[in-house]
Amino acid sequence: MKAWLEEEKSLRQNGFADRQIQQTVEFMRQQGMETLWDVQNTYDSGLFGLTDRCSFGSNGLCCRNCNLGPCRLDSDQLPMHMKVAVPDTQRSSCGKTADTMVAGMFLQTVMRGVSSHVGHAIHVARALVESAEDSSTLEIKGKDKLIAVAESVGIDTKNIETAELAKKVGQKALEDLLGPGKGPMSFAIALAPKNIERLVKAGLVPEKGAAETIVQGVHSTAQGMMSSSKHILMSTVRFGVIDVIALYISTQIQDILFGTPAPMASKIGIDVLDEQKVNILVHGHVPLLSEMVVNYANKMEDKAKKAGAKGINVVGICCTGNEALGRLGIPMTGSTIMQEIVVGTGLVDAVCADVQCVYPSLSTITSKLHTRLITTMPELRMDNEIYIELNPENADESAQKIVEESINAYKERNPEKTFMPTAKGHGLVGGFTVEALLSVLAKLDSEKPLKPLVDLIANGTVQGVAVLAGCLSPKVQNDMSFITIAKELLKNNVLVLATGCAATACARHGLMEGEAMEFAGEPLRGVLKTIGGAAGLNGQMPPVLHFGSCVDNSRCAVLASAVADYLGTSIDKLPLVASAAEHVVEKAAAIYMGVIALGITTHIGVTPKLSGSPYVVDMLTNELNEITGSSLLIEIDPKKAAHKMIDHIKKKRAELGI
Amino acid sequence: MKAWLEEEKSLRQNGFADRQIQQTVEFMRQQGMETLWDVQNTYDSGLFGLTDRCSFGSNGLCCRNCNLGPCRLDSDQLPMHMKVAVPDTQRSSCGKTADTMVAGMFLQTVMRGVSSHVGHAIHVARALVESAEDSSTLEIKGKDKLIAVAESVGIDTKNIETAELAKKVGQKALEDLLGPGKGPMSFAIALAPKNIERLVKAGLVPEKGAAETIVQGVHSTAQGMMSSSKHILMSTVRFGVIDVIALYISTQIQDILFGTPAPMASKIGIDVLDEQKVNILVHGHVPLLSEMVVNYANKMEDKAKKAGAKGINVVGICCTGNEALGRLGIPMTGSTIMQEIVVGTGLVDAVCADVQCVYPSLSTITSKLHTRLITTMPELRMDNEIYIELNPENADESAQKIVEESINAYKERNPEKTFMPTAKGHGLVGGFTVEALLSVLAKLDSEKPLKPLVDLIANGTVQGVAVLAGCLSPKVQNDMSFITIAKELLKNNVLVLATGCAATACARHGLMEGEAMEFAGEPLRGVLKTIGGAAGLNGQMPPVLHFGSCVDNSRCAVLASAVADYLGTSIDKLPLVASAAEHVVEKAAAIYMGVIALGITTHIGVTPKLSGSPYVVDMLTNELNEITGSSLLIEIDPKKAAHKMIDHIKKKRAELGI
Repeated sequence: MKAWLEEEKSLRQNGFADRQIQQTVEFMRQQGMETLWDVQNTYDSGLFGLTDRCSFGSNGLCCRNCNLGPCRLDSDQLPMHMKVAVPDTQRSSCGKTADTMVAGMFLQTVMRGVSSHVGHAIHVARALVESAEDSSTLEIKGKDKLIAVAESVGIDTKNIETAELAKKVGQKALEDLLGPGKGPMSFAIALAPKNIERLVKAGLVPEKGAAETIVQGVHSTAQGMMSSSKHILMSTVRFGVIDVIALYISTQIQDILFGTPAPMASKIGIDVLDEQKVNILVHGHVPLLSEMVVNYANKMEDKAKKAGAKGINVVGICCTGNEALGRLGIPMTGSTIMQEIVVGTGLVDAVCADVQCVYPSLSTITSKLHTRLITTMPELRMDNEIYIELNPENADESAQKIVEESINAYKERNPEKTFMPTAKGHGLVGGFTVEALLSVLAKLDSEKPLKPLVDLIANGTVQGVAVLAGCLSPKVQNDMSFITIAKELLKNNVLVLATGCAATACARHGLMEGEAMEFAGEPLRGVLKTIGGAAGLNGQMPPVLHFGSCVDNSRCAVLASAVADYLGTSIDKLPLVASAAEHVVEKAAAIYMGVIALGITTHIGVTPKLSGSPYVVDMLTNELNEITGSSLLIEIDPKKAAHKMIDHIKKKRAELGI
Repeated sequence: MKAWLEEEKSLRQNGFADRQIQQTVEFMRQQGMETLWDVQNTYDSGLFGLTDRCSFGSNGLCCRNCNLGPCRLDSDQLPMHMKVAVPDTQRSSCGKTADTMVAGMFLQTVMRGVSSHVGHAIHVARALVESAEDSSTLEIKGKDKLIAVAESVGIDTKNIETAELAKKVGQKALEDLLGPGKGPMSFAIALAPKNIERLVKAGLVPEKGAAETIVQGVHSTAQGMMSSSKHILMSTVRFGVIDVIALYISTQIQDILFGTPAPMASKIGIDVLDEQKVNILVHGHVPLLSEMVVNYANKMEDKAKKAGAKGINVVGICCTGNEALGRLGIPMTGSTIMQEIVVGTGLVDAVCADVQCVYPSLSTITSKLHTRLITTMPELRMDNEIYIELNPENADESAQKIVEESINAYKERNPEKTFMPTAKGHGLVGGFTVEALLSVLAKLDSEKPLKPLVDLIANGTVQGVAVLAGCLSPKVQNDMSFITIAKELLKNNVLVLATGCAATACARHGLMEGEAMEFAGEPLRGVLKTIGGAAGLNGQMPPVLHFGSCVDNSRCAVLASAVADYLGTSIDKLPLVASAAEHVVEKAAAIYMGVIALGITTHIGVTPKLSGSPYVVDMLTNELNEITGSSLLIEIDPKKAAHKMIDHIKKKRAELGI
């Protein structure tokens, strides 16, 4: 496993794969502004590897939970020069072995991830209840979706007003999230009506509110608590299940509130910033912010013009961007990893963030520019911020303030500090969903819309389905894990869905443009063209389908569950695979554990901090198969990873006898 | 601040202060069994400090939250030889500064602590509701307390059955813990009816259920979330408040279920183990386990005798021990830090643990002995365990199984592997409470029982009150922080209450025996003798009052709040001070932040992992005064610490004009 870190290092030495990134990083270096790539270089540039990332931490062999420590343990993963720092013991002060330490640290990571998604879902569910109670707040745009969701969780939808129904759905979600829960979570059953049974039997579907379960989960990570590494790892699976349910609740309710996305063309790249306009960058994960800002940007064009701009240009980044892309078609500047450089162009007048993946470095960068750093939710407060809390009750007022601040900032923009890369961005199509896919397939078979897809898989035209998801990492040549994997999968006639930063990486490299269809194998290309035609996309149909934000990974789970149900089998039997190749944030770990719990084997391609325990690695990559029928697949090299994913699909096909 | 780590090192070089510990550690070394002192020695014994505890971690300058890292930062706190490992940057990959990193790591510590206490309180509140719903489970022993608590949270106590009232109280607690909350937590108001207002105004009393607040709190610690160090630190204060309320709920409901403790004499030391009997060691924090085990130990004496033992000897350690000491008078083997050596004597037939502070090393140690390691709650699963879940519904059955396992183990005890230290233990009096104190004081003034105490403080007979609380640390000469501080305070006529391991440290050094009265100043001694006489303790009255488990720190808060209310002032104005001199576990951090939030300045005497940020240290030790009227006091040397605590009391007296 020591090789993993070496492989990463050699991959990142390939430099930038995206020319816009490269050019803008160079500009920022000239301006004396540091980015995460510079920080990574700093670690890499020490002599004899002395400033490498800490080997104890990288292998999961460091614990500083309590004040007996920090403790660290030996491993054959450590480089020679670290050996002098190894204490002569096999245990932490409290008696943790390497297995316990590595597993425990991983559970803490998953806990932060699942808390993030449950926190997101609570906000969204409350927004639905509040909108239902007070129509002056948010309009409920997705009435069809409301009825579908209500029915899926057993709420009677006959003779009931929309508002009342919305309130009931919101409350049902809050019961799952906050309790009092009785029996397995309602939305878990709705997500995977048949598949859930085996998870329930395996004790993997919590029966109390997610919040209480999380409190006891965090409790179990404190000093002198859970120390059996096997039990700790089973906790990561259970919290993975909660995570997926939280994603599902968020997606469903966001569709109810803001409407289900639909495929539409837009653009991606730093050049979606407009030098002539007030540029507002929406950042984070909750669609409320972008909905409202876009709304007020439209209303306040005149004010912007009075300030000398040609108008207001709302653009996105990270998953708030993906949400706005899918529902409103607003362009994306890029992926989360680019937030420093997008702001560093000096062309962004305000960066408005709700929650998650908002780098603290934006405080430093905006402090050197005219750019306003606007935070909008209580869980994310930053230095150098302007805090404008935005919630359903004050959404109009706050959105207006945000746009006003942006216009004020525009007046202070210093053209000498701005930069526009010469490299050009790409077109993309966002907004694919299960609903969109089914409505297209319904044109082929209106009674059983899944049948055409299943038939295509059965006859081998489509070999299987892969989901590319999660973050981008400067520890490898960022983007290229996904690009390499996507191209290899397409060539082998695997249908590729992508979400979050995996999706925006594919888009930035042109894989969401019609021309990229050339990368797909002949049979797959035919299928995609049919879908594109039915969706009205014709020449624009991309080979990689943008399936939304990282929260929208639940859409992929819904699709998998629907196919499994259609076939009367369980998800783990299907020719499916996922990859969070460049996983960075804790949420990625929570998601991949949840996706694995559902039965989908998931690849990761950056060293997880697990390598200090061969037991933990074996449990997750091997033994877990006995429980979930799926496992973690660790492979740093993207080409090898793609072939392991294809092999997995072939194996599942063989097992199905197709 | 670099001096802090050096001071600790020099203190721990003083070796063992407790002869029983010293002798038993030596025995274990002969047996090839390692303890946490050996692990600490391992870190200390490297040449040139190369194997010292990691300086980055010790100063809070390491972050491995996400997979961009682990990251580490430079500081003037780092020793020269670590400088080669310092990356040439002032930020983490995501852009955290030292302030953000240090504060964020501290918040994570507090979050694990508050989750532990909220988790404990949820279990206890559920037990009350279940007992109320089904009388076949637990008997409600504290009917007076039930009425008092019900009234304090605004429940009508007239014309209502005990069971119904108990259910309402339990549900009220669950509302605070799990929601739905409306307005500040009911038990917060009950704890500090007048004092709470300022905390509410300062936004420091959460208005939603504790669990939801914790989920969003953990969410706020994930990558790309809260990065303003000031906001992060204010979160630690808010979660401190939740922590104290969770303690208060637990103590109150435990008194309702099991009765309020009363002062009674018992013994402490490894020699409370009985070589002739089946020894059952109860360990952890929740009193249900010890209550039930003691109950069945009494019933199953005959069975033990048939197995060749002279009977069954239930003894305690950690706070489950303190709970059993206070309510049942069962003897204590020692403090939590001694768990390895108590089990290592080979005289313990079963160690039964519920939750918290149960070292993973017990798995290794029991695997080499006949000793059964019995775990009883789902949050704490260990290697080499026998899992016998114990909850109100199955308490009888499970307790019986536990005692049976212990008897079976006794038969396998190998006398050649047993050890009894020649050094003798001590007597002690446990079970002091606010109720006990007030009932004694009521003998002096039945209408205003607080008046005699307040008068004694006003006239200077008692200079003030200090609470010694929290863990023991092998990073200093364990025990001696508290012993030094206690003696110094007593000499200066400060009334000393102690809880948790601070209490058991005092007890092991004889400070809870009547003879120790000599350490108290003449005026204080008179007061204590009066209290002792009224409590029927006469010659046995100790100068340090054992105020229960660490959860029972809430009893001290209740006393402080009552005195403040009596005087019509706020807690921070009173001549009070606390010390968690040898804080180890995360719960200690949560408690001391809560105690500070209430207005009580608290000392800590082992380097917290905060020293990498002068801002964070200043905020907690200084600036916080402006918000709470109290702060953290960091002083490694116990003698100096005692005088700083006394100075604080003098300052508060001067401000009150007394």
